[in-house]
Amino acid sequence: MKSSGETRFDAVDVIRAKRDGQELADAQIDWVIDAYTRGGVADEQMAALAMAILLNGMSRREISRWTDAMVRSGTRMDWTAAGRPTTDKHSTGGVGDKITLPLAPTVAACGAAVPQLSGRGLGHTGGTLDKLESIPGWRASLSAEEMQAVVRDAGAVVCAATENLAPADKKLYALRDVTGTVEAIPLIASSIMSKKIAEGTGALVLDVKVGSGAFMKDTESARELARTMVDLGSDAGVRTVALLTNMQTPLGLTVGNALEVRESVEVLAGGGPEDVVELTVTLAREMLAAAGIDGKDPAEALRDGSAMDVWRAMVTAQGGAVDAPLPRARETHTVLSPADGVLSRLDAYGVGVAAWRLGAGRARKEDTVQAGAGVEIHVKPGAVVAGGEPLLTLHTDEPERFDRALDALDGAFTIAPVGSRPDLLPLVIDRVA
Amino acid sequence: MKSSGETRFDAVDVIRAKRDGQELADAQIDWVIDAYTRGGVADEQMAALAMAILLNGMSRREISRWTDAMVRSGTRMDWTAAGRPTTDKHSTGGVGDKITLPLAPTVAACGAAVPQLSGRGLGHTGGTLDKLESIPGWRASLSAEEMQAVVRDAGAVVCAATENLAPADKKLYALRDVTGTVEAIPLIASSIMSKKIAEGTGALVLDVKVGSGAFMKDTESARELARTMVDLGSDAGVRTVALLTNMQTPLGLTVGNALEVRESVEVLAGGGPEDVVELTVTLAREMLAAAGIDGKDPAEALRDGSAMDVWRAMVTAQGGAVDAPLPRARETHTVLSPADGVLSRLDAYGVGVAAWRLGAGRARKEDTVQAGAGVEIHVKPGAVVAGGEPLLTLHTDEPERFDRALDALDGAFTIAPVGSRPDLLPLVIDRVA
Repeated sequence: MKSSGETRFDAVDVIRAKRDGQELADAQIDWVIDAYTRGGVADEQMAALAMAILLNGMSRREISRWTDAMVRSGTRMDWTAAGRPTTDKHSTGGVGDKITLPLAPTVAACGAAVPQLSGRGLGHTGGTLDKLESIPGWRASLSAEEMQAVVRDAGAVVCAATENLAPADKKLYALRDVTGTVEAIPLIASSIMSKKIAEGTGALVLDVKVGSGAFMKDTESARELARTMVDLGSDAGVRTVALLTNMQTPLGLTVGNALEVRESVEVLAGGGPEDVVELTVTLAREMLAAAGIDGKDPAEALRDGSAMDVWRAMVTAQGGAVDAPLPRARETHTVLSPADGVLSRLDAYGVGVAAWRLGAGRARKEDTVQAGAGVEIHVKPGAVVAGGEPLLTLHTDEPERFDRALDALDGAFTIAPVGSRPDLLPLVIDRVA
Repeated sequence: MKSSGETRFDAVDVIRAKRDGQELADAQIDWVIDAYTRGGVADEQMAALAMAILLNGMSRREISRWTDAMVRSGTRMDWTAAGRPTTDKHSTGGVGDKITLPLAPTVAACGAAVPQLSGRGLGHTGGTLDKLESIPGWRASLSAEEMQAVVRDAGAVVCAATENLAPADKKLYALRDVTGTVEAIPLIASSIMSKKIAEGTGALVLDVKVGSGAFMKDTESARELARTMVDLGSDAGVRTVALLTNMQTPLGLTVGNALEVRESVEVLAGGGPEDVVELTVTLAREMLAAAGIDGKDPAEALRDGSAMDVWRAMVTAQGGAVDAPLPRARETHTVLSPADGVLSRLDAYGVGVAAWRLGAGRARKEDTVQAGAGVEIHVKPGAVVAGGEPLLTLHTDEPERFDRALDALDGAFTIAPVGSRPDLLPLVIDRVA
């Protein structure tokens, strides 16, 4: 496993340095990322290094260099040909987080180019590509030329990353998943930011989710992740801002692929749930400001139909039958309120796991998802409910899935006595710039 | 990589538990060692776990269970048929450490059975099997039946471990070597002790080397390793004692394979360097005491030829031509004292590296070693020397090796002014029981 004469470094020396609490030199970081990508550093060596990083941390300089080395493991895209400022958003993942779907067209309608390379869902959080794939005919995989064409013609593209986008991160991400080294802020931040920097966007807004349905359960660690990523963006010349947003309860009234597309189209048509509209407009304003575009109101783009026009152009350009009916699950089951009162809590994690178990999500990346499966939410926290009133409707093609989904919902909501005023977090908790 | 339905545990959960500073449960340890041995836990997963153990440590219970699980990954040998108490010695490795060669026959001559499964050298420390293989015809590999026969007939056997002796440790040891996870006391201690416990000895004396030529550079960490191993021995029902001994300077006057056999034979003939004789007799007394054998004097066994008789029987039984001349290197180069004075320091690490570079040692386990290569020492620390007097003679078959060996000796010795009294450590520094 030791590297041959051609290299100047040895994997064991790099591992030992980090293990013993030293800062890695730029040249060590460049070498280890390059050698790992090419197979000269073995998986077991990178796993030991990742654990040492998780336990001993990395300085800002190290994380920045690590990110840059991952960007340089592939190609960095260039959107100059779009002729407009580029801006993008990344969410750390939540339950019911369909925001990209109304957001990218809205921002493009206001004059920016949005080149969003996106991912699939794993576990209880959904993936943007899975949602869009519920539109009949829609294709996630585009060539680099096709991406340029969609951005030029529609103003925004949401598609899968090409193989050559930060390949070091692809390999490392899969390794971290099986070696208990996911939960390291330097590795999470560099993974996200290497993809976004390689994507070539000029400005970036990070939506760092906080709460039971998010990867970061508490505000403190979410803020640290946000700060680390904002610094990485600045170091790489990408104007980056982060919002910490509430993921204690699902976003909007739907969780699931086609269900969330339907809700997104409602927002693009000027309607939709209040929280989805608010977050879409807030993130759009941040994206436009970061891109240096003034005097455009994203709320107006939702009202006047210009965002919807971009949506239709974008979906159509990727083969989507934009007017075709969306898939619906064959079976439904409704959960009723057990009592009169106030819904004081609807737990994002519980609802996310229920949707996953109904078939909306996957346990392994090879798994397929059901387009129609998921959870419809009839009542949001803070609302008054009557006993016997529907709270949730579960959707799936396979009714044998209901039992395990209901298990996930056991204890996931609380009906407080009539007249209670639940203490709810605001939608936007903090801003890091 | 996640384990399939047949298993009760998941590798990622075990890694995360240790990463987060928890104690592993017995069942988790048993499962992870068994699954790793069979390939159900991947190398990258064990590498991450090993790094977490290195950085977060293990309790006595965990180390004991980990050791026991490695013993149970193979078979535990049984020497009841020898009809005498068994006792063994293990050294953590040093420069010029040929002690096993005179020691095993001496202890057997005093009435114990010595079943020593030994290893090869790596890096600057030599291996007992490499030394014995310089005897023409001598075979390191014996079947289990052959081992029993040699112990029965000669009283002692020194040979290679069989494939089925703690196979989990074999696999883990190779992994630690390439992942920067060698230097963890729980892993070092469990590696050594799993092999010695599986070997089936009833009593064990550990020679924990301290100093520049040893794995443990300072007394504190050597004492911690000794204490950990003595506890592991007790937990497994092996009467275990440890001595901390000086490895600042090489043992005896020779470093190298055939050179050390020649010196060992001198000791068995009642002569040899004072430090080698002293350590042989001290360790022999500890081994006999641990085995419950009283009233035998190992110094007498060296003087009366009974230890030599066992040596001859033991070497002959393994095919060694006990009276054949030992190989000699084709080329020699002598290092002279640069000044009159007192040799105040002769660094074990420098001499060890020089011998390695002359061809006595190996960098990778596939490498071969030269039987005749090594360093002969003419003057030991504390002795008066005259300028131009020989200090060391280097031996090799390949004279192009002299330059790099001399580089290793640069700064490896100090000639203090005439009349100086260097402050030298005693041979035996401490005892842990």
